[in-house]
Amino acid sequence: MPAGSVKLGIGDDCALLRLSSAEELAVTTDLSIDGRHFRLDWHPPDAIGHRTLARGLSDLAAMGARPVAAFLSLGLPSSLVQKAKARRAWIDGFLIGLVKLAESHQVPLAGGDLAESPVAVADIVLIGAVPRGKALLRSGAQPGDLLYVSGSLGGSAAGLTLLEEIAIELQQTPIPRSRRIRIPASLRAALAPHLYPAPRIAQGLWLSSRSMATAAIDISDGLSTDLAHLCRASRVAGEIDAAALPIHPGATRAQALHGGEDYELLFAAPASARVPRSIAGVPITRIGRVLPRPSGKPLLTLLTERGTLPLESRGWEHFS
Amino acid sequence: MPAGSVKLGIGDDCALLRLSSAEELAVTTDLSIDGRHFRLDWHPPDAIGHRTLARGLSDLAAMGARPVAAFLSLGLPSSLVQKAKARRAWIDGFLIGLVKLAESHQVPLAGGDLAESPVAVADIVLIGAVPRGKALLRSGAQPGDLLYVSGSLGGSAAGLTLLEEIAIELQQTPIPRSRRIRIPASLRAALAPHLYPAPRIAQGLWLSSRSMATAAIDISDGLSTDLAHLCRASRVAGEIDAAALPIHPGATRAQALHGGEDYELLFAAPASARVPRSIAGVPITRIGRVLPRPSGKPLLTLLTERGTLPLESRGWEHFS
Repeated sequence: MPAGSVKLGIGDDCALLRLSSAEELAVTTDLSIDGRHFRLDWHPPDAIGHRTLARGLSDLAAMGARPVAAFLSLGLPSSLVQKAKARRAWIDGFLIGLVKLAESHQVPLAGGDLAESPVAVADIVLIGAVPRGKALLRSGAQPGDLLYVSGSLGGSAAGLTLLEEIAIELQQTPIPRSRRIRIPASLRAALAPHLYPAPRIAQGLWLSSRSMATAAIDISDGLSTDLAHLCRASRVAGEIDAAALPIHPGATRAQALHGGEDYELLFAAPASARVPRSIAGVPITRIGRVLPRPSGKPLLTLLTERGTLPLESRGWEHFS
Repeated sequence: MPAGSVKLGIGDDCALLRLSSAEELAVTTDLSIDGRHFRLDWHPPDAIGHRTLARGLSDLAAMGARPVAAFLSLGLPSSLVQKAKARRAWIDGFLIGLVKLAESHQVPLAGGDLAESPVAVADIVLIGAVPRGKALLRSGAQPGDLLYVSGSLGGSAAGLTLLEEIAIELQQTPIPRSRRIRIPASLRAALAPHLYPAPRIAQGLWLSSRSMATAAIDISDGLSTDLAHLCRASRVAGEIDAAALPIHPGATRAQALHGGEDYELLFAAPASARVPRSIAGVPITRIGRVLPRPSGKPLLTLLTERGTLPLESRGWEHFS
C-alpha cells in the first residue's frame, strides 16, 4: 500500500490511514452552518457540498499539503432527513458536489457522521501530508519580501451580491419564501466563483516543494483580514498596491480587498525568488510588499493614486 | 520530537502532526447536537464537554489506538456567544470538562473552529495511532470466540432516566422552563456514568498490544445494537447470557441490553485466549459467545432462564 493512503474507510469505529515517516500530517476542520456559511434556500445542494469541501482543501493548499482523506459530519433538519424523496434529492445533490470536487483532487471521503439537527450543519475534516519541514506557515514573512496572490479576487463576493439580488427579486414574486432559488442559466458563469470556488492545491504543492514562499495563507475571510493574520503571525506589516490587485471581472475593489471565500492563496516570497507568472495554469500576481512593523503604525497600508492609506481588516461576515 | 506528537497547534491554516511510519493513523469524527445528543437545559456545560470528547476517545479505544490529538468544531447560539458573561461561563464550563478528560489521556486539543449557530453543535475529531496491523476491527470475530465487555452496562441510560425525572420535577415548580437543571449533590454519583463516562483507552491499548481480541467495538448505541454491528461486520451471530450481564447498580436489564452511551468495550476473543478478569483496573466480564450464522436464524439471541430468545437491536435513541 502506498504511503498516505486510506487502509480502512467508512464502517468501523475509526478510519485507518498510513503515512510515510518522511511526511508530516496536516489536519484542518471547518464548520459550515445554514444561515451563516450558506443558505439552504439560496445555494444549490451541490454548491453547498462543493463549498464545504473547498474550505477544507483550501486550508491544505495554504500549508502546501497534498490531500489524503476527508471526513464529513453532517447534521440535517428532519425535513431533509425524513421525507425520503426530498432527502435523497438534497443529500444526493450535496454529495455529488462534494464528491466531484474530491475526485478532482483524488481525495477519498473516508468517514463521517450523520445526525438529525434543527439546523443544517456540515463539518469537514481534511487530512493532508507534507514532507517534513516543508509546510507553508503563516509566520515566516520577512521585511523586504514581496506579496503575491493566485487567481483573481472579489469574484465570490460579487457572486454572493448577485445571489442576494436574485433572492430579493424572488421574494417580490408570489412564491413561497421557503422555495429554493432557481439560478438562471445566464448567470451561472458569474456565480461560479461563489458557488464552486477552486482550492489551489496544485499551487500550494508547487510552492512548498520549491520552498519558494516564506509564508502563506488562503483567502477565506477576505484579503484585508487574511493578510492581517499573516502579518501578525510573522510580526511584520503589509502594503498592497491598489493598482496591482487582480480584481475579478464584475467585482469592485472593495470586494477584492475585503470579500471572503475566494480561496486564493496569498503568499510572501523573497524579492530574489523567481516567482513565475502562473503556477499550474493559474495566474500569480505581485500585489505588494512586506514591511517592518514600527510600533504605532498601521499593520496594513494601501498604496493608491491618492497616496498611502491605512487598510482596515474588514473581512466579509456572511449573513451575520 | 517524539513520533505521534503535535508540531503546530491552533493558529495556522492546519495543525501539523508527526507519526512514526511503524504506526497507522486512526481517525474518527462525532457530531453532538443540542436536543439530540445532549440538552443545554439538562446537562451541565462541563458534562457536555466531557461527553463530546468521550465519544471520540471511545472510538479510538475500540480500535486499540492511543490518542494523539483532538480537534473541536463548536457552533453556539448567539445567546451563549454574545452575552459576554454567559458565554464565558458556558464555554469555560464546556472546555473545563473537555480539557480535564483530554489531560487525563494526555491528548492535546490541537485545533478547531468556532461559529455562531442557531443550535448548539459540537463536532469532535480524534486522531490516534496504532502499530501497523494491530488495530482492533469489528470484522474478525469467529464462531467459537467468546464475547466480553469491560465495566458495567446500563449506568448511562439509568442516569439519563434520572435526569429526565429531575427535569420533569423542575418543570412542575414555578421556575422558567429555560432554566438549567441544578443537580442535587446526592444524585451526582448516580448520574456520573451518564454525565462523565470513562472511555476505555487503556483497555483498548492492552487488547491491541497483545493481539488478544479478534474483533472489538465500543458500546455507544447500546449492547444489542453494537453487538449487531460487530456480528454483521464479522458475518457471525452472537449469543448473550442474560445472567452474565454486568448490570450497573440501579440499572435495569433492558437498560444494560439497549441503553447506549456506556462507552464500554465489547470484544470477541478465542476460547483459548487468557482474558484476565480485569484490565487496567476495570473488570472484564464474559457475557456470551460467537456462533456461526445459519441463514434465516436471528442475528442475536439471549439465553435466559426461560430459554433462548431472539434479541432485537433496540439501541437508545436520545431525545428523538
